[in-house]
This record gives sequence, structure tokens and C-alpha cells, in this order.
Amino acid sequence: MRLVDLIRKKRDGGEHSREEIFSLIDSFTSGEAADYQLAAWLMAACLRGLTEAETAALTEAMLHSGQVMDLSALPGAKVDKHSTGGVGDKTSLILAPVAAAGGLLVPMISGRGLGHTGGTLDKLESIPGFNVNLSPAGFVKVLAACGCVMGGQTAEIVPADKKLYALRDVTGTVESPPLICASIMSKKLAEGIDALVLDVKTGSGAFMKRAEDAERLAAMMVATGRRMGKRMAALITDMDQPLGRAVGNSLEVRECLDVLRGVRHPMSEDLRALSLELAAWMFYLGGRAATVAAGRALGEEMISGGKALRKFREVCRLQGAAPSFDAQPASLPTARHTAEFKASAAGFIEIVDCEKIGLAALALGGGRNKQDDVIDPAVGLELHHKSGHAVKPGDSIATLHYNDEARLPGALRLLGEACRVGPKPPGGARPLIIKVIQGERT
Amino acid sequence: MRLVDLIRKKRDGGEHSREEIFSLIDSFTSGEAADYQLAAWLMAACLRGLTEAETAALTEAMLHSGQVMDLSALPGAKVDKHSTGGVGDKTSLILAPVAAAGGLLVPMISGRGLGHTGGTLDKLESIPGFNVNLSPAGFVKVLAACGCVMGGQTAEIVPADKKLYALRDVTGTVESPPLICASIMSKKLAEGIDALVLDVKTGSGAFMKRAEDAERLAAMMVATGRRMGKRMAALITDMDQPLGRAVGNSLEVRECLDVLRGVRHPMSEDLRALSLELAAWMFYLGGRAATVAAGRALGEEMISGGKALRKFREVCRLQGAAPSFDAQPASLPTARHTAEFKASAAGFIEIVDCEKIGLAALALGGGRNKQDDVIDPAVGLELHHKSGHAVKPGDSIATLHYNDEARLPGALRLLGEACRVGPKPPGGARPLIIKVIQGERT
Repeated sequence: MRLVDLIRKKRDGGEHSREEIFSLIDSFTSGEAADYQLAAWLMAACLRGLTEAETAALTEAMLHSGQVMDLSALPGAKVDKHSTGGVGDKTSLILAPVAAAGGLLVPMISGRGLGHTGGTLDKLESIPGFNVNLSPAGFVKVLAACGCVMGGQTAEIVPADKKLYALRDVTGTVESPPLICASIMSKKLAEGIDALVLDVKTGSGAFMKRAEDAERLAAMMVATGRRMGKRMAALITDMDQPLGRAVGNSLEVRECLDVLRGVRHPMSEDLRALSLELAAWMFYLGGRAATVAAGRALGEEMISGGKALRKFREVCRLQGAAPSFDAQPASLPTARHTAEFKASAAGFIEIVDCEKIGLAALALGGGRNKQDDVIDPAVGLELHHKSGHAVKPGDSIATLHYNDEARLPGALRLLGEACRVGPKPPGGARPLIIKVIQGERT
Repeated sequence: MRLVDLIRKKRDGGEHSREEIFSLIDSFTSGEAADYQLAAWLMAACLRGLTEAETAALTEAMLHSGQVMDLSALPGAKVDKHSTGGVGDKTSLILAPVAAAGGLLVPMISGRGLGHTGGTLDKLESIPGFNVNLSPAGFVKVLAACGCVMGGQTAEIVPADKKLYALRDVTGTVESPPLICASIMSKKLAEGIDALVLDVKTGSGAFMKRAEDAERLAAMMVATGRRMGKRMAALITDMDQPLGRAVGNSLEVRECLDVLRGVRHPMSEDLRALSLELAAWMFYLGGRAATVAAGRALGEEMISGGKALRKFREVCRLQGAAPSFDAQPASLPTARHTAEFKASAAGFIEIVDCEKIGLAALALGGGRNKQDDVIDPAVGLELHHKSGHAVKPGDSIATLHYNDEARLPGALRLLGEACRVGPKPPGGARPLIIKVIQGERT
């Protein structure tokens, strides 16, 4: 079939065969198909949708555009987690060492911050000396040595996705669940994993604002992974307010160290609970626990016994962290100034736009507006209360950590738009874990 | 608004402002917008549609991408006809001289054959010496001298359409009524006309197979023209069988000469009737007749009195036709061989796929498979009966005119697929003129 006929087929709502999807992606990565042809197809796919079989074929075709890690020489189940991103979403730093301490192999390839959301790589780089740019061989070496590794994507992994994503970005074809699914799943499957737990966030601080969209995407990713022979589970989780108390790179690492050290902080209970729940599913899918409950207990044990903290120290050392760090909060970068964001009236805190809390941290220098912006690892903010908490006038709602005075007013303005103090506790609160979508063990 | 936001707007079903449409077309023709961005927008427009206002704005933006002919120095109404194309569709060669003889100015810019349909330029070029490649000044000179002119599109006219059409062709975005409408109407309006009659064909030999699609396109073109201040009418006409008896370039010119000379042939009555009806609407819209019926009478008079034939001779001479031609059928190129396509059984002729009759003429060398194929002006076919006619075994259904023996079997095979002889007269016949869609006189 000629390329233009493939485009017409999708335009008219037809379903592509696996061969057609492969020929489309192959001709794009080889340069045989023009960008404008793929752009037309992408728009048709956005508007007509892709079936489960088409999405799986697209994932597979993209996956095979580059190298797939071969981890078969390492004994044990390889399990990873992927989050669609949120504000204060830092579970990876906790669950990777928890899962590795509990006997799983966690080959984690993470991303940078995107828009209002933070990125695991940026957080890790606030640790002095920590190197996320590992070669494929270096990546496997760390994994083999300590059971987990946290690196960035290399050029060898799913090159089709890089090219496709750049094209989607300028052609208005980003917001398509099957295209998002194929992009995420192809990269995750290239890690050579056996099982994957997804944290699909929904709410005002997530990319999927509506729970039904998050569920649809989650179901699609679970189905795609299962078709590829992977054990899958997806947790739909709330992102109407930040997870934990810290937003900003070194502040978030510090909060994670507290959780790993067994320090309980009321504002971090949600972070601890979600990290343990995700780890529990990893243990269950990876065969280290017979039930999710048993997986939860195993995770708790890894924290209370100090094994997870030791594992985190170990992976940091293997990835080049300065000896001075040694998982001590004090050795992380600290901003020179702090300021308080205070309640101006008595009432109940309501977070009306969680995304703006992420943007406030970005405004302080904790994220990027443009791809080549340099991040200040020390800045960010710490929230003192969850949504619904009662405050008096003058009570601090959040502490802002900053280095550049000029950036403060913008961040305060954004916080003012993100939170308000109302006369009644806000309604519509929902559980942190809204739903679990599980692929049967295969 | 950034270009990507315009694309997203159309993707999400929004309606563009006139300014947005102009900025889209301007940034494309200036090269500021990338092909892949326009391709994505085109696909979104295909699937989401364009409103009447958007279609008019697109037409206008394309029109103003190049020169618009200024015919204001020529006194009189400038009126043209456009057909969406069919098999044996040769009315232009009749109605242009009829309309000019009746006092209209007809600045006709025509196209080449496309797929199974013939093109007026190709037909004219079967006349020895006839030159369709006129400069804008030469075009106006012929028009001023004799009241009609028949040329091809020049680079100065609607350059955006050339670029856009090339992109649509390779991105599966040809079959969109609003995009087709803007493409046709921008080129026709660039002729500097006051009124336009559309012949929108429907049936198995047309591009619009379904009458409702043809009607939709016709209504769109009429609305667009009226918004631009033009008097408009559209005739929805039947293309389930070829118009007239000849299909192939010099054969079709010969048939037109017969009509212009007043020779009545039963197989050409439909051609004569439709040409006169289209001319009647041109006279009416152009103010040369108070009613369409009066326009019809004026057209008949131009033929019976010989004025239309003299006008045709005149325009041929002005456009370089050899003196030997002088509108004599004998001076047109003739193929060396003929063959008969015969009925193999007794029954009634049924044309089941009119498109294949056009493809049979193309197979003999009368059209192009690729853009740079050279047309043989002499080849083609002459049908001896209309659909529904009773035949005996061995009766000739059509005579094929050919020069290359090797091309005959393919053409005969296509004719065999196009027509069959059935036990009963085929049902579903409809009038030649199915419907008239009229824009009020403005």
C-alpha cells in the first residue's frame, strides 16, 4: 500500500494492519516518508483514534526503531514504574531503592521536568555528583551491582519517538491518548522489563485533568503492555494537590530521604503511602509477593529495617554522588532566602489549581521555560497544609526557598492563584488512589 | 495566535476567524509555516470541516496569493462556467463561442485531463496549432478581440493553490468539499469574472459519486461565490454515462463542431442540451437574457444562425490554429485503426461504471497516467448507444480509435467492465440535469 493510501485509510476511519503500522514507522525513521505525510497521518490518528491492536503495533514498531536492552543475563524480575507526571511527584526516588532492597531489578529510565511537572533526572541531579547520563553498559553495570539504576534516555533507545515527538509538538498532535500510550510504552518496554506499574495522575496538577481521560489512557497502556507479554497494573491517582510537602528539586530529595529514613511527617504521609502502594504492586507483579498486601508489608519492612536507605546510598555512590552526600539532607544544596506565603483571612485552604503550584516552583528557577534553561536545584517551596486545613490570618501556607529576589513576586502571584482560603472546607475531595486497573498476570 | 494553536483549534472543531485563515495561508506561501504544519491543518480541516465563512476566507486568501485579472477596461459582463469533470464532458468548447456570440465575455481558464476525466486544454490542443499557453496580456487581447478565450493557468494565478494542491495530493487531503471549493473558486475568481455557472457532476463517471456530495459541494461553491459578490448558479448533472458520443480529444472536438454546425446526432442530444442550458444560465446571470428560458432561446439562435461556429473559428484563429483547420472536422488528427466493441448477447446496454469508459480512452493513449505522459490526440472511442438501448449479439456498442495495437486489449477489457448487456433495461435512470442551485442575483 502506498503511504498516501495509508493516510487516506486512517482519515476514513479504517483500521491498520500490524504490517501497515510498521511500514509507516519504518518509512518515517528511514526518511522515505516525508514529515508532512506523517503529520497528516498523526492528525488523522488524533481525530479517528487508534484501536488497541493498532496502538500495540505502533508501540512495537517504535520500540524496534532502536535498541531494546537485553537484561536476560541478570537473574530476577525486572520491574519499573512510570508516572504521567504531577506536582511534587517524587515516588521514584523512594520506590526504586525499596523495590531493589526487596529483591527486584529496577532499570529505571526517567525524564526531565516538563511544563509544571518535575522530572526525576532533575531531582537526582540536585545530589552533588550524581550522574544520570550513563552509557548502556554503565546502566547495566549499576543495575547488576545494586538492583536499581536511574538514568536518562539515550539516543539508542526508541529513536522514532524522539523524531515523532518533535513533529507532534509543532503539529498540534500531542494530546492523543493512543499516541501518548505508544510513546510512553515503547520507551518503557525498551528497558527490557518483565512488568510495569503505571501511576496515571488526574486532577488540576496532572496532564489529564479529567479522571475518565486518565482511566482511558491507563486502560490503553495496560492493554498494550499485556499484548507485549508484560505484567501490568495502573493506579489512577489524585493530583488535585501536590504529593507530599516539597516542590522543587533538592527539597523533594530531602523529603524522600526523610521517608526512606523512617521519619514520619504528616504532610508526607500521602507520598509514603503512594510510594509503598506502587512498590507493593511492583513486588506483586514481579513475583516477590503473593499478594499486593504482602508486597506492602515487604516495602514497609525495607524502610523500617533501613535496607531501602542503604540501597539508596549504594545507587547514589555507584552513580557518582559525592562522598559528602551519603544520604544526609544537609549535604544537599540550600537556597539563600526563604519567604512565607501566608493566609490573609481565616478559613479553609482550597487548592483550586494545582498546576500553578508547579509553575510557582518553576518561576523560582526550579524548572525550565525553554529546553536549554538551567535549573536552580535549591529553589522551590514547602507546603505546610493540605487542602481543607483550617487557617487563621497570617498563618503560613507555604515557605518559598529562593536565590533570586526578582523571581519571588511571580511565584507568590502564582501561589495566590493556586490556593485560596474559603469560608468552608472545599468539597470534592477524593481518595489518593482513585482506581486500580490491573492486567491479569500472564 | 501561534501556528500550532491554529492547528489545535481546527483539530478541536473550532471555527477560524478570517484573519486566522489569512495568516495560515500567508505563512504557508511565505514559507514561514512548514509543510508538515499545513499538512496537519489540512487533515484537521478534512475531518472537522470548514464553515461557509471559513471556506470563503480560504478562497479569498488563496485568491490574493497571486494576481487577479483586471478586466474592468473591457465593457460587458464577464461570465465563465466550471465543470467538476466527467467522461466526454466537452461543453466548454460549445458554450464559450455560443456565450461570446451572444454578447458575453468569457475569460476561460481551463485544466488538463485528470485521471479518467478529460481536460479542455488537451482537447483544444488536438486542433493543429492551437495555443493554450497565453501570457496574461495575450489572454486579455484574445478576449477583447473576440469575446472569449481559452487558456491554461499561469504561475501568476493563485500560486497558493498550486502549492496546496501538491501537498494535498501526497497527504490524503484531496477529498474535502471545502478544500475543493476553495481551490476551484479561487482560480475562477482570479479570472476577474462577474458571474459563474457551475456544472457539478455526479455519478460513476464523476469525482463525486453520490448526488448528495455533489449538492453539498455545489451549495458551498455557490455560497462562496455569492459572499465574494458574484452571481452564481450550479447545475447538478448526471455522469452515470458519458456526455455525448465521443471520448478522446480530437473525437470530442469533432463532436463539438457538429453541434456548433447544427448537425443533430441522437447520441449528441444530451451534449447539445446541457451546453445550451449552461449557456442559458450564463446569459441570464450575465444580464443578456431576462430569464433562463430567454437565455436558452438566445443560445439556440447563436447556433442556428451560424454565429457560434464563426465565433469558434475566430477564437481558434486568434489562438494560433492552422489555417487548414477552419473548423473542418477533416483537418483534425485521425487514428490509423479502428476496432469494434460488440455486444456478446441480446439484451439492454447497462453502463455499470462510467469511470472505466474514461479509463479505456486513457488506456488507448488519450490521457495521462503520469504527469509527463504525452497524449495521443487522435485516439479514443465513440459510443453508438446510450444506456438502456436494446442490442443483438454482434451489434457494435462502441468504435475504438487507436494507433498502438498493444493498447487495444486493455481498453477492450475496461469497456467490458464498464458496460454489460442485461436481460432488462437498467433501472435508476435520472434526468441529465438533476437539480439547479441558484444564488440570488446580487
